[in-house]
Amino acid sequence: MTILYFIDILGTMVFAISGALAGRDKKLDFFGIAAVGLITAIGGGTVRDVLLGSTPVGWMEDLIYLTMIGSGIIISLLFGKAVLKLRRTFFMFDTVGIAVFTVLGLQKALNLGVHPVIAIMMGMVSAVFGGVLRDIVCNEIPLIFRKEIYALTCLCGGILYVILDRLSVEQIINTIITVSFIMIFRVMAVKFKWKLPDIS
Amino acid sequence: MTILYFIDILGTMVFAISGALAGRDKKLDFFGIAAVGLITAIGGGTVRDVLLGSTPVGWMEDLIYLTMIGSGIIISLLFGKAVLKLRRTFFMFDTVGIAVFTVLGLQKALNLGVHPVIAIMMGMVSAVFGGVLRDIVCNEIPLIFRKEIYALTCLCGGILYVILDRLSVEQIINTIITVSFIMIFRVMAVKFKWKLPDIS
Amino acid sequence: MTILYFIDILGTMVFAISGALAGRDKKLDFFGIAAVGLITAIGGGTVRDVLLGSTPVGWMEDLIYLTMIGSGIIISLLFGKAVLKLRRTFFMFDTVGIAVFTVLGLQKALNLGVHPVIAIMMGMVSAVFGGVLRDIVCNEIPLIFRKEIYALTCLCGGILYVILDRLSVEQIINTIITVSFIMIFRVMAVKFKWKLPDIS
Repeated sequence: MTILYFIDILGTMVFAISGALAGRDKKLDFFGIAAVGLITAIGGGTVRDVLLGSTPVGWMEDLIYLTMIGSGIIISLLFGKAVLKLRRTFFMFDTVGIAVFTVLGLQKALNLGVHPVIAIMMGMVSAVFGGVLRDIVCNEIPLIFRKEIYALTCLCGGILYVILDRLSVEQIINTIITVSFIMIFRVMAVKFKWKLPDIS
Repeated sequence: MTILYFIDILGTMVFAISGALAGRDKKLDFFGIAAVGLITAIGGGTVRDVLLGSTPVGWMEDLIYLTMIGSGIIISLLFGKAVLKLRRTFFMFDTVGIAVFTVLGLQKALNLGVHPVIAIMMGMVSAVFGGVLRDIVCNEIPLIFRKEIYALTCLCGGILYVILDRLSVEQIINTIITVSFIMIFRVMAVKFKWKLPDIS
Repeated sequence: MTILYFIDILGTMVFAISGALAGRDKKLDFFGIAAVGLITAIGGGTVRDVLLGSTPVGWMEDLIYLTMIGSGIIISLLFGKAVLKLRRTFFMFDTVGIAVFTVLGLQKALNLGVHPVIAIMMGMVSAVFGGVLRDIVCNEIPLIFRKEIYALTCLCGGILYVILDRLSVEQIINTIITVSFIMIFRVMAVKFKWKLPDIS
């Protein structure tokens, strides 16, 4: 599916930008910024592929990913402040990226023959783990463990996909529904400030 | 061996509880607590399997592990304070879990054909690495690197197992001896406050 | 190539020493110091092998690596202060180690059939990632992300190697040239305090 592929590589670039900007915030040097951008962009898919034993990991097989990551890093370096002003656009790309990463990760896992529950987890890992690694590397408690509802979004999206799949919904339609669901869920979560109950 | 399997999944739950409680301490939200519980429970086995190239990693092949982890997390959320009061019982389960994880990890590595020295290391990794990842994710210097004698316990247990194995002791008897040894060693280490010499 | 192998295991020991000394600085106990030494020494090669799917990872197949690491850790414990006084010698070994790790990692990746760009990255990962993991485990923002020019050195060395390889330079000569280049580049970078432009 060409559109998914297109969004996938665009999402990869958005993640690279988010990582590179985090690196700037931490006053890293050029190389550090590039490294954090790279880790953020490929972290999720890499962890998924390593756990599933699908190696060499995905981004090694298609250089377009590294190219997009490199572009994202350069954009962050040249236009860092401008990018920050475009926060809204940026947030939309990020949301699309997360949705697509979830579905692509889940599909890859299903194709490798694991149980749907595991596939749902792998979808989440694909979408979420880049940000987790970014925060670990920047020496912070991962954001996602603190206040984001966003992993839950991927979880619900993954469950929806598997249910629709069981109901024999065609893959392309299922993909469109699930991606839209995740995007809408996330936008609403941010707009209406949904948050998980505070337990601690 | 049914008993080992039973203790293995029980140990997994205890590790999930220990992780989830650490997450509560750090004031993470619901999802963060679940994530730290999960990582603590599966971290050791996952790292072992990835290093040995035995993928998809073990817990993906038998959903009982995720089920037990989910139960452990729910228990921590509902009865967190009560669990803390049961510290003694909890400590015993933890000790049994560590002992069993060490032996199972070691056996798995031996079955994959690596050198016994590597297998001993993989036994330690199985028992210890979940806690290491828990501490990294919670942004602390891993506890085990600071004051616990508990990795040493797994090391000695692993060496004992390999020696007995060389002496042709039957696997089931060897397992019982090694598991008991690790448990007794750890209980005594805590009771008599054994610690490693301070070098720094 | 016997010399490369010799430098490889020597470099592994130097990395173990650097890790163990970092562990001492953090006031870890005996086991913690050993763990940080180990992680620093094997981290780069392990990450490379896992990403490439070349498992069991390299150091499991040849116990000389663990032996050298063990020796390095013992040296750090017994002669820690003396080692620190030998900083210059130490720095030279470290430099040789980095150069050799880069080239060996790159060659391994090329042999596994990945694209040269990926191979260059894997060379860098081999040389650099042990130190990254050391800093993460010690709860610091990786040094390399902050002020070292040293990843760039490995990057340039890797590119040089691939270019010479394309120009059909024999492998042994290429290796000598690249290793020398990386060493000279690094020594000059430190001597003349080269640093990357400050962007943040």
